Amino acid sequence: MLNHAAAASHVVAASEVRAFATRILERAGYSPTEAADGAYALTWASLRGIDTHGIRNLKRYYIDGIDEGIIVPNARFTIDSETPLAARADGASGLGLAAACWGMRLAIDKAAKTGMGFVAMRNSNHIGAASCYAHMAIEHDMIGLAMTGYFFANGNPVGMPPTFGLTPLLSTNPIAVAAPGGEQFPFVLDMSTSTVPYNRVELYGELGEPLSRGWARDDSGDDTVDPKRATLLWPLGGEGGGHKGYGLAMLVHILTGVLSGGWWHNPERERTHGHPPDDPASYAQQGQSNFFGAIRLDQFGPVDEFKRGMDETIRAVHRSAVEPGRDGVYVAGELERATEQRRRRDGIPVTTELAVELAEVGRLYEVPLEIQPAPSS
Amino acid sequence: MLNHAAAASHVVAASEVRAFATRILERAGYSPTEAADGAYALTWASLRGIDTHGIRNLKRYYIDGIDEGIIVPNARFTIDSETPLAARADGASGLGLAAACWGMRLAIDKAAKTGMGFVAMRNSNHIGAASCYAHMAIEHDMIGLAMTGYFFANGNPVGMPPTFGLTPLLSTNPIAVAAPGGEQFPFVLDMSTSTVPYNRVELYGELGEPLSRGWARDDSGDDTVDPKRATLLWPLGGEGGGHKGYGLAMLVHILTGVLSGGWWHNPERERTHGHPPDDPASYAQQGQSNFFGAIRLDQFGPVDEFKRGMDETIRAVHRSAVEPGRDGVYVAGELERATEQRRRRDGIPVTTELAVELAEVGRLYEVPLEIQPAPSS
Repeated sequence: MLNHAAAASHVVAASEVRAFATRILERAGYSPTEAADGAYALTWASLRGIDTHGIRNLKRYYIDGIDEGIIVPNARFTIDSETPLAARADGASGLGLAAACWGMRLAIDKAAKTGMGFVAMRNSNHIGAASCYAHMAIEHDMIGLAMTGYFFANGNPVGMPPTFGLTPLLSTNPIAVAAPGGEQFPFVLDMSTSTVPYNRVELYGELGEPLSRGWARDDSGDDTVDPKRATLLWPLGGEGGGHKGYGLAMLVHILTGVLSGGWWHNPERERTHGHPPDDPASYAQQGQSNFFGAIRLDQFGPVDEFKRGMDETIRAVHRSAVEPGRDGVYVAGELERATEQRRRRDGIPVTTELAVELAEVGRLYEVPLEIQPAPSS
Repeated sequence: MLNHAAAASHVVAASEVRAFATRILERAGYSPTEAADGAYALTWASLRGIDTHGIRNLKRYYIDGIDEGIIVPNARFTIDSETPLAARADGASGLGLAAACWGMRLAIDKAAKTGMGFVAMRNSNHIGAASCYAHMAIEHDMIGLAMTGYFFANGNPVGMPPTFGLTPLLSTNPIAVAAPGGEQFPFVLDMSTSTVPYNRVELYGELGEPLSRGWARDDSGDDTVDPKRATLLWPLGGEGGGHKGYGLAMLVHILTGVLSGGWWHNPERERTHGHPPDDPASYAQQGQSNFFGAIRLDQFGPVDEFKRGMDETIRAVHRSAVEPGRDGVYVAGELERATEQRRRRDGIPVTTELAVELAEVGRLYEVPLEIQPAPSS
């Protein structure tokens, strides 16, 4: 799989990435808490090797997004309604990374008090790597859950159509779940409900590489390997099993957009696509909607038993027979954790293009950034 | 897709199927509650067109299972430990269909009192169609969740290997979620985390039809269309995206087998595969483990708003452009509901083979069954 590491010419220390991103976000107008949370989430993704959701997006999503009117800095995230177990919250069109940290902390606080906590949030924005928030639950001996969804009621230039359909109604609606291990590493699943996320298509386009068959289709519904013509993403499962990926994407939409009220009752900012605003056909979601959950393990028995079960599960997986030509069998989160350990030691790799972009942003906001040449490998 | 309807020679009225199954299960030794719940679950699956999990299995799973020592009739399902929100329960190696009804009712009862309820159950058995239990939450204005998992720590003759592996460690670990609609039908997702469930492979074998590519592999890991050689199921996503299906199957294992304690701490009945019982390599799960959840919609806002959001979602999906050659675009649960309405009116189709089997079981237990020839179509 192509990623930034393969094309990396430079590295930046993780602490430097986080400090730099914090200061840049503050100078761009975000509050200190927004900046700290945003920098945490971006650095976390970059450390874990999720480069498509890491520091690469600092300028293009989270700084440019202010100028484009997508993100309102210095937002006040609020609770519409709540119970001891649940809340419907308003992301206030703010920095999605910070709204997600806030929403997940709210879920964890509720779980700490009651045993479980779930938060459905409307009016959010791009939250980066969903697993960052699910992972926050682990240190509290909880299972963490994070999802983000977007439903394009009238279609969108790119997206995931329903099975048998050609209108991209859904975003790639990812699901992330994290669960603590004991002696072993935590389980961290983070998956788009399409076969590949759209930013994989973008990355291959940037690198001039063809897509694999079964990833995407063109406007007319034909499978394509051309990143520029790929507008319809196959739901996970593709031609034979895509109804399952589509079903999972709808589930994410229900827990995010429907449960939060996010997708259909914000008429003031709807993209009405020429329909009168009171026509149901004009419904479109304002921003992304999110869902965060935290489940305290001790609700189901001794925490140590759960962790022993996780450890024995991981050991059993590692005993599996291995396909010829593969070097091992892994559990979700395992390779990301190894990457995190390596990058904490060696720094976060960046491409020349990204190094130039970050240096320019640093100059603009007068924040220095120490970038080093990548060690030759 | 092949199913029983295509090969059906006879029909049985739904009320007749349910009454027949109830009496057969009682005479086979199950308690009246087990028999009623079991018959409900089998009839529900058959009505919804989930023939692989319906009345077809009355004898082969749920009667023969007693003789094979897999199922203990007249079981007492018990709670190991509980909180207002959660329980760890023991399915007592009983009838999985009845254990699942009992477990889901427990989750719904907790949710009715507190807002949410989750039950992890160990020592369960085959629960049939997981969506049957998720669907039970709908009439209470709750989102319902049901999963069943099996982790073969030392492999199994058939199953789903982890990505890059050749040992079938996982069963097809299905996920079912149901959410109420308003004027529209409920959303009901029910999906194995493999590309196809194993009973699809069996059904194709019975019908002498080749599998599709990308469904299964043989022992050496090569893709095969021969149902008899298909021992390794591809996780959902197949060769390119199967790490996601594998990740979902592991998630199901964590919520079912690990959270319930079901898979690793029942040494007395472990299949030790030649290992000493205290060797971690000997761990194997006793029976299946389940997870049931119920989330009251009013925890997140007005129930009517949620239902309106569901209705508008479904209407938007129905407005999607349709692929050439398809007659429409559907939401999970929509075709099953149409099948249910048709079969409630016209009866449940059965193959000649199944009609003969049911008639024989009826003779054995002295329970009459009214089977009619299928109307010519």
